[in-house]
Amino acid sequence: MSDVTYILVTGGVGYIGSHIVVELVNAGYTPVIIDIFANAVKATDNGRPVVIERMEKIVDKQLIYHDIDILNKSALDDLFAKYSFYAVIHLAGLKAMRESINMPIEFYKVNVFGTLNIVECMKEHGVNNLMFSSSGSVYGTPQYLPIDEKHAVGGCLTPYGKSKYFIEEILRDVSKAEKNWNIILFRYFNPVGSHKSGLIGEDPRATNLMSYVAQVAIGRKPHLSVFGGDYDTHDGTGVRDYVHVVDLALGHIAALKQFTTKGGLKIYNLGSGKECSVLDMVRGMEKASGKKIPYKIVDRKDGDVGSSYSDATLIQTELGWKPEKNYEEMFEDLWRWQKNNPEGYETANSI
Amino acid sequence: MSDVTYILVTGGVGYIGSHIVVELVNAGYTPVIIDIFANAVKATDNGRPVVIERMEKIVDKQLIYHDIDILNKSALDDLFAKYSFYAVIHLAGLKAMRESINMPIEFYKVNVFGTLNIVECMKEHGVNNLMFSSSGSVYGTPQYLPIDEKHAVGGCLTPYGKSKYFIEEILRDVSKAEKNWNIILFRYFNPVGSHKSGLIGEDPRATNLMSYVAQVAIGRKPHLSVFGGDYDTHDGTGVRDYVHVVDLALGHIAALKQFTTKGGLKIYNLGSGKECSVLDMVRGMEKASGKKIPYKIVDRKDGDVGSSYSDATLIQTELGWKPEKNYEEMFEDLWRWQKNNPEGYETANSI
Repeated sequence: MSDVTYILVTGGVGYIGSHIVVELVNAGYTPVIIDIFANAVKATDNGRPVVIERMEKIVDKQLIYHDIDILNKSALDDLFAKYSFYAVIHLAGLKAMRESINMPIEFYKVNVFGTLNIVECMKEHGVNNLMFSSSGSVYGTPQYLPIDEKHAVGGCLTPYGKSKYFIEEILRDVSKAEKNWNIILFRYFNPVGSHKSGLIGEDPRATNLMSYVAQVAIGRKPHLSVFGGDYDTHDGTGVRDYVHVVDLALGHIAALKQFTTKGGLKIYNLGSGKECSVLDMVRGMEKASGKKIPYKIVDRKDGDVGSSYSDATLIQTELGWKPEKNYEEMFEDLWRWQKNNPEGYETANSI
Repeated sequence: MSDVTYILVTGGVGYIGSHIVVELVNAGYTPVIIDIFANAVKATDNGRPVVIERMEKIVDKQLIYHDIDILNKSALDDLFAKYSFYAVIHLAGLKAMRESINMPIEFYKVNVFGTLNIVECMKEHGVNNLMFSSSGSVYGTPQYLPIDEKHAVGGCLTPYGKSKYFIEEILRDVSKAEKNWNIILFRYFNPVGSHKSGLIGEDPRATNLMSYVAQVAIGRKPHLSVFGGDYDTHDGTGVRDYVHVVDLALGHIAALKQFTTKGGLKIYNLGSGKECSVLDMVRGMEKASGKKIPYKIVDRKDGDVGSSYSDATLIQTELGWKPEKNYEEMFEDLWRWQKNNPEGYETANSI
C-alpha cells in the first residue's frame, strides 16, 4: 500500500475548498486540487495562483493543483488515470444564489452535469468514496426548527438550490445502483471566519452577510443594509446558523476517517446548531475589529425567512465531529483575513 | 420569409418521434430529425435506417436525418448553424424506466445534460420555441383522479421519472430567465397504436403492456403476465390512460400552430382522459386480431399503482386538440403494424 493517500478536491481553491485542503494536509492526506476559478478572479503571482501559494505557506508543502474544468470529461479521465484517489471531495460548482435566477442553464450545466462527470469518472476508475457539498438551502422554507436531516427537502426557489437538490437525488440513485460506494452529502449552513493565519479566506466580493459586514468594518462600504427588522426573532433581524469554516473543513476530515467499506449514503448537516441574528454578527464584528459598523434596517428580501438553523447532532453522534471554535475566534479570524487582505487575493500578492 | 419551416425533432426515429415527423410533414413543416438509436437496434437497408425509409414512404418525400447525439454539443452547434429552426420538439432520451434504476448516471446524463445542450444551442442560435416530452410519471403516485396539471409533481421513484421532473423544473427556470421563449411541457400518458399504414410503430421489445399483448397475440410469447388482479378497479386489474400515438403526435402540431410571440411556459397532459384496464386492453386486442390472448394474474409489481389517468381537458380548451381515434382503431392499427412487422424494423427491411 502506498503511503500517499490522494484525495481529489474539486473546487479546492475556493473559500471552503482551501480550508479543507489545509486540513487534509494537516491530517496526513495528499489533496489533489482541481479548480478553474469560476467564482473568483484568478489572482496570480509569477504565474501561480496566489491562493495556492498562501495554502502552501500555511502547510509548508508544495500542493498539487490542476487547472481542470469539471465539464471536461477527458481531462478528468486523465486525472483519474494519473492518481489513484482514495476519495473525492466534490465542491466545484457555481454558487451565486441570486445570479442563478438569470443564468439557469449555466448553473445546471456546471453543477449537475459537472457532478455527473465526476461520478462517471469515479465509476470508470473504481473510486467509491465521495463527499458532496450540498447546502441547507435544499430544505427550502423551514417547516420546523432546528432543521434536522429528516426535514423535507426540495422546496428550493432558485436554480442554485434546486441544482443542489437534484444532485442529492442523483447521488441517492447512484448509491442504490452502486452498493459498495460510500457517499456523504454535507448540507452546509453558513460558513464564516478564516484560517487563523489570516492568509486564506473568503473573497470579499461574496454576496453574503459577513463579507459585507467585514467590508463595512474596513471602511470600504459606508453601511450595512439589514434586510428586515421585524422578523419573529430575539432582535427582529434574521437568524442564521454560522459555522467556522475551519470547523466545517474538519467535518470532512472526520468523515474521511470513518469511510467504511460497507457502502451506503449518509446525510449530515454541517452547522453550529446555534442561532445568531444579523445584529449579533454586527456586534461581534464591532468587538473584534474595534470599529463601528453603521447599519440601516430596510425591507425584507423576497424569499428570505426569519430563522434558519440546524440540528447538527447527527454528525456529532455518528462521526464524533462538533464545532470547536467559539464566536470570538470566528470574528477575530475573519477580521485578521479582512484587515490583511481588504481586496482578497487580488491586490495582496506578496506573502 | 422562407417557405420552409424547419422543426428540429430530437429522437425523431423513435416510436413517438416517427409519428410526429409524419404529422409535421402532413401539416407542411420540414422536420429535421436527429437520433442515434439509443433505445433501439438500428436496422438498415442499403445503409439507410429502415424507419426513415418507412416514414418517407408514408409522406412520399425525402426526410432530413442526422446521426447526432444530443450529448455532442459541437455537432448540435453545427446543426443549429445549418438550419434556422422555428421550433424544437425535444424527445430524445433514455426511457426504459426499470433499467434506469441500475443505470442512473447514464439516464441523468443523457436526459438532463442532453436537454441542457439543446437549450443552450437554442439560446446561442436564437431559437425560442420548445416542446418537451415529459411524462405522466412526474406525478408519482396519484393523489386524486383524474390527474390534472395542477396535481403535485416530483414524487417519482425511478431515475427515469426523476430525470423528466428535473428537466421540467430546469425548463421552468429557463422560462423565467428567457421571457420571450415559448415552452410547452407535454406530459404523455400511455401512447399505443401505430400509423394506419402499418409501416411504422413501436419496437416490439418495448417493455410496456401493449407491446407484450401484441407479442402474445402473434404467438411469439406464450401468455401475458398481468401484475395484480386485486386493485380497486372495475375488473381488479390496473387502469391506465391510453392515447393513440397519432393523436398524441397531432397534439404537437396543434401546439406548433399556436406558438405565440408572447413567451411563457405551458404544461399539458397528453392523454385520452379515459380509463382502460389491462383486461379491457386484452379483450380489445383479441377482437382486433381474432386471436386468443392467454393471460395469468400474478403479484403486483413494486411501485405500481392501481389507477392512473389524466384530465386532458386543458389542452382541449387551450389548443383545441382532442383525441380523434377510438379504441377500435387503436387496436386495429397496432395489430396491423405488429402482424406486418413481428420483429419491428429488424427483419422487415424491404418495403
